[in-house]
Amino acid sequence: MTVNWTEIDEFAKQLIYRAGETIRESFKNPLQIDSKSDANDLVTNMDKEIEKYFVQEVKKAYASHHIMGEEGFGEQLKSLDGTVWIVDPIDGTMNFVHQQRNFAVSVGIYHNGIGMLGYIYDVVLDELYHARKDHGAFLNQKQLAPLKPVAVKESILALNATWVTPHDKVPYEVFGPLVHKVRGTRSYGSAALEMAYIASGRLDGYLTMRLSPWDIAGGKIIIEEVGGVVTDLFNNDHTLLSKESFFAGNPTVHKEIFEQYIQGKLEVK
Amino acid sequence: MTVNWTEIDEFAKQLIYRAGETIRESFKNPLQIDSKSDANDLVTNMDKEIEKYFVQEVKKAYASHHIMGEEGFGEQLKSLDGTVWIVDPIDGTMNFVHQQRNFAVSVGIYHNGIGMLGYIYDVVLDELYHARKDHGAFLNQKQLAPLKPVAVKESILALNATWVTPHDKVPYEVFGPLVHKVRGTRSYGSAALEMAYIASGRLDGYLTMRLSPWDIAGGKIIIEEVGGVVTDLFNNDHTLLSKESFFAGNPTVHKEIFEQYIQGKLEVK
Repeated sequence: MTVNWTEIDEFAKQLIYRAGETIRESFKNPLQIDSKSDANDLVTNMDKEIEKYFVQEVKKAYASHHIMGEEGFGEQLKSLDGTVWIVDPIDGTMNFVHQQRNFAVSVGIYHNGIGMLGYIYDVVLDELYHARKDHGAFLNQKQLAPLKPVAVKESILALNATWVTPHDKVPYEVFGPLVHKVRGTRSYGSAALEMAYIASGRLDGYLTMRLSPWDIAGGKIIIEEVGGVVTDLFNNDHTLLSKESFFAGNPTVHKEIFEQYIQGKLEVK
Repeated sequence: MTVNWTEIDEFAKQLIYRAGETIRESFKNPLQIDSKSDANDLVTNMDKEIEKYFVQEVKKAYASHHIMGEEGFGEQLKSLDGTVWIVDPIDGTMNFVHQQRNFAVSVGIYHNGIGMLGYIYDVVLDELYHARKDHGAFLNQKQLAPLKPVAVKESILALNATWVTPHDKVPYEVFGPLVHKVRGTRSYGSAALEMAYIASGRLDGYLTMRLSPWDIAGGKIIIEEVGGVVTDLFNNDHTLLSKESFFAGNPTVHKEIFEQYIQGKLEVK
């Protein structure tokens, strides 16, 4: 059976734009905010409503497709066999709550483990970053250029202050020298947007200790489509089935940082 | 002689909007990029052109006003006597160069040392944060609400990774515990925008080791107008005549952080 990726692409975009409308509309009403695993892991009624919407619509349109998402309304998958949607209804929920901006809807669609369609939608700016495997990556209608070589000393790296702060679970000594080597560091609080920024050349790298499949799935496809590299911190591919460390970047930046700052210096904790 | 602040306010907004148009227009042409004190301290032809524009127009309209700016086309001032414009033509030049977003035009107008009019213009998003002393602060036409009390553990703090990384000139040990206490840290790479985010409640605090008068001048007036606090890291007022440390925030966050994390722990280096 052949899969009609053009049709799926159009359908996915439709769902994403409608989700964005619902989210923008929600700014008029008070949010219900809960916390999950810890007090800072926020979830809102909108995260849940948007994920339910994706699960319901995808299952209605494509009964054979699988779907998993951050809030657990989809399936718990043990493999990426078949066609799998991986959805983060609101990536950057803390920003959504505190800022009403700097968050995104993130969707990746995989087929037997291969990333086929990726989307990151900056809802407030109405900017959709999207890619189809071997068909290019785009910001709205504009094609994104292949990433050009950048030296680490001229790069901008997304790295949160937490990862360089003395902490028993974090190899903070590893990243300190890197912070002083790069031209600048930034932290936006949305993994999806940080990946969108890499794909569009606004950031040259992004590393963090632990992301979930839905944080990674959409952005990975978009970054790879412009020639960027997406791995865990040990330079291995992600399984996209559990929490993993994360390191994405421009290919030259990824290589130089991995070889000079990480390789052999980082333990699995 | 009475000063017509309404007239100056309208004039300043006109200059800022025109500067924004020029900057947006410039995206069509290649930038000339130089570096200043070090390789990462970038300056472009646009920084210079915009500052020259401000100096020329202000001097033409108000011969008695003083003006100082980042690029040095204004005056080198030894006091804030009289009416003084303090201008950063492009705050966040690195972002301007690398991202073509996340930078701002920042202007503060002081009268005998008192902040009268403050402006931060996010050129790409066409968002003007502005305030007039005792007349409220606004984002475009919408008045900004007075800042509400926030606990440090529920706050979002702008703090660059550099300040918590082992370094001989930076008291990195001081800020580490704070990073783990707050709900989240962010870093946007534009002091002016970080201040605009505090004024609009999207961030609850921002601290950094060294800012120039033009980084601080506009935002200070806007933050104070919504009840926020702007000091150096020792809880002293800025002179706005030289480089100084910087700590702004929601009043409860500013107080709790200063008393519990900074006071008595920070040496002048």
